Amino acid sequence: MTLSQALANYQTKLTYEDLPEEVVSFAKLCILDYFGSALAGSTKEPILMISETIEEMGGNPQATLVTKGKTSALNAALVNGASSHIVELDDIHKGSIIHAATVVVPAALAVAEWKQLSGKELIVAVVAGYEICFRIGEAVSPSHYYYWHNTATCGTFGATAAAAKLLELTEEQTVHAIGNAGTQAAGLWEFIVDGAMSKQLHPGKAAMNGLLAALLAEKGFTGAQKILEGDRGFFKAMSEEYDEGKITVNLGEEFKILENAFKLHASCRHTHAAIDIAVDIVKENDFTAEDIERVEVGCYKPTMDITDNIDPQTQYASKFSVQYCTALALVKGSASLEDFNEKDLWDTTIRGVMAKVDAQLDPEIAAAYPERWGSKVKVVLKNGQEIEKQEDYPKGDAENPVSSEELQEKFLQLATVLPEDKRVAFSEKVLDLEQLENIADLMELVYTPGTETVTR
Amino acid sequence: MTLSQALANYQTKLTYEDLPEEVVSFAKLCILDYFGSALAGSTKEPILMISETIEEMGGNPQATLVTKGKTSALNAALVNGASSHIVELDDIHKGSIIHAATVVVPAALAVAEWKQLSGKELIVAVVAGYEICFRIGEAVSPSHYYYWHNTATCGTFGATAAAAKLLELTEEQTVHAIGNAGTQAAGLWEFIVDGAMSKQLHPGKAAMNGLLAALLAEKGFTGAQKILEGDRGFFKAMSEEYDEGKITVNLGEEFKILENAFKLHASCRHTHAAIDIAVDIVKENDFTAEDIERVEVGCYKPTMDITDNIDPQTQYASKFSVQYCTALALVKGSASLEDFNEKDLWDTTIRGVMAKVDAQLDPEIAAAYPERWGSKVKVVLKNGQEIEKQEDYPKGDAENPVSSEELQEKFLQLATVLPEDKRVAFSEKVLDLEQLENIADLMELVYTPGTETVTR
Repeated sequence: MTLSQALANYQTKLTYEDLPEEVVSFAKLCILDYFGSALAGSTKEPILMISETIEEMGGNPQATLVTKGKTSALNAALVNGASSHIVELDDIHKGSIIHAATVVVPAALAVAEWKQLSGKELIVAVVAGYEICFRIGEAVSPSHYYYWHNTATCGTFGATAAAAKLLELTEEQTVHAIGNAGTQAAGLWEFIVDGAMSKQLHPGKAAMNGLLAALLAEKGFTGAQKILEGDRGFFKAMSEEYDEGKITVNLGEEFKILENAFKLHASCRHTHAAIDIAVDIVKENDFTAEDIERVEVGCYKPTMDITDNIDPQTQYASKFSVQYCTALALVKGSASLEDFNEKDLWDTTIRGVMAKVDAQLDPEIAAAYPERWGSKVKVVLKNGQEIEKQEDYPKGDAENPVSSEELQEKFLQLATVLPEDKRVAFSEKVLDLEQLENIADLMELVYTPGTETVTR
Repeated sequence: MTLSQALANYQTKLTYEDLPEEVVSFAKLCILDYFGSALAGSTKEPILMISETIEEMGGNPQATLVTKGKTSALNAALVNGASSHIVELDDIHKGSIIHAATVVVPAALAVAEWKQLSGKELIVAVVAGYEICFRIGEAVSPSHYYYWHNTATCGTFGATAAAAKLLELTEEQTVHAIGNAGTQAAGLWEFIVDGAMSKQLHPGKAAMNGLLAALLAEKGFTGAQKILEGDRGFFKAMSEEYDEGKITVNLGEEFKILENAFKLHASCRHTHAAIDIAVDIVKENDFTAEDIERVEVGCYKPTMDITDNIDPQTQYASKFSVQYCTALALVKGSASLEDFNEKDLWDTTIRGVMAKVDAQLDPEIAAAYPERWGSKVKVVLKNGQEIEKQEDYPKGDAENPVSSEELQEKFLQLATVLPEDKRVAFSEKVLDLEQLENIADLMELVYTPGTETVTR
């Protein structure tokens, strides 16, 4: 049995009845969290550029865009995939380094809306999609991640899996679909040097490519049988090291979606433990910015590698500065999407605290990575008082979970493109998704008119 | 100056007036040759599967499909790209191992038809597209080719370049487009083990992805500045070895399109020198299949690696068997698309000769590769006569060119989906392309009605 066959066998057999209640509840939170980020992203420039391009192309009105209008399922996967990855608040799976929602959910939604499928069917598809891309990401981590954006490359398989499930592909068709997912997998990290918009193109294209692989397989289009482990396949071509065993170990006996983490702060995940501590310290103590003498932040290596920036020049860069993020949280008591803004980027109080933040590698914190993405923060006040805290798991990790209420609140804060009543109704519909007969009824709530095309 | 800037600078400055007459003539042959293969491929199962999927998606009627109907420029690039790579008769550039027409031409055509551009504009765009992908392919050859299908990966840059030229992108926009071409580049060889249909998906997706990168850049969408040479870019991620110098050496002082080779036989290029010799031997001598005692074929290494197959079981496999191809040519005196058919695959006379073909590595032929893709063939007859010939360059190579008449004849043989009068008119229009005001007038000749979509 090839690895693709093992995955196809797993997912074609999976039914809604196989899912424990906690998996159903968790999957619904993943879908709700997808929409929060996607709706918040839907007004951003890069997303509008993709959306306008797609509007020019046109397409049968099969699926709703989070921007405006309806278009083909493939086009919708592209736009809706790009849109959920821009405000840096989408979910993250540590073991595979994948933001799954922004790829898997839009591909699944496009099919579910188009084919008028139910909430239960969407939930099963999302669970299968997460399972498959997380396993592939774990198999190639960490070496693949050096050059490749796992969310895009490994995510493509997740989009294919979810779409294949909703299209009710056979096991054989699913193997072909997985083959053509792998051969389309792309997304290089090189853009990060320039902070280029490729970041959003990646998940959009992964959702679209993954869906295309599944749609073609439905027609009988064939792909490689061993796209993962083959001599000229995904593993060997795109990873220095890999562990095939991760694909099948405990497959069907656990649900990896439960390992997914949610972000409450609108910054790089590697800054979150420090922010969590800063927020707690502010809550539990009574001091002002002027009282601070210095701040010590103990970090693991990627926090230092990726977010050690003492003078961020753009909002985007500030989300990748552990010094700025810690200062922001100490001054404002939070680090939400709204907290990161042009005014506060240059705020002298925040910048004053930032200048006092000393971020260093902490041996204990570093040794616990990647199992724990923790931090230590010590605030020393001018009066001599020292406040010190450690957090091993940032809020939103499986080990430090957020509640359904907190995630609903996050959604309501993010989805401000919808009027408040619609926003509440929408979130409740998602949290009740297993009752929904037709996903099109859900998408109707986020629909705004656009230039539609129809078959002549 | 980054490599992307050098390429963007070259192509934004290139004008029709810069092109020597032989480049214009040659580019027209490349475009005509694209259409022959694309029209011949347009009725094949894998192409129909892609076309039907795209028809379901719909799109504004911007560009004509070689299958049927019109659709969006992006969708047309996908279908028309896939279609020209299936009958194994599309062009090949030895230095970069790229079949450029099947990726560059459909992307360019989609824009040219949509925007109602002229023949001259199309010609310049195709010349630029070939130049850029050939240079990138040469820079990463041969190591990239082990895992990656150069036509798809490097071809993406060619599609982007051609589309960017037609969209009149600025130098800066073109750099961004090249960045987003590279970050979408994909296409693994793993499918070849199964003879899977991914082979056709690759050039189709490369054309579509390349076009998307250009369309987005037109809107201001940004990409990596150093997608080729950057630390986490295309070269380092996807090639064991590479030579950056190939990108810029003599750039603007030569036209690499002139190095492009055309195929006259419907089989793997590595079998062509042997077929050429066999055809000549049959023409110049008087013997029958029964007279043959044995046939010795001297080969270079890839001929042995890829086409050493003494018992092909499918038509596709027979095109990758140097033994079958040589026997076919000795029995029938040709190896055209029609010559490869189900009946002749199992023909006892051809199979009888095939059993007498002994293919071996020839030191002299092998040493001359990859500059020369040659062969030696010795036919020993039962009467003791020995007929021996050597060919260093297969017919269609720049060093052994085919005439415009031969390529027109090839087109007329391939494009049988068009009635004969239309076929002749079409080929003459392409051979007169610099006179054409509007590419839409050309595409009208290959248009057949389909299910169109329109903006509501």
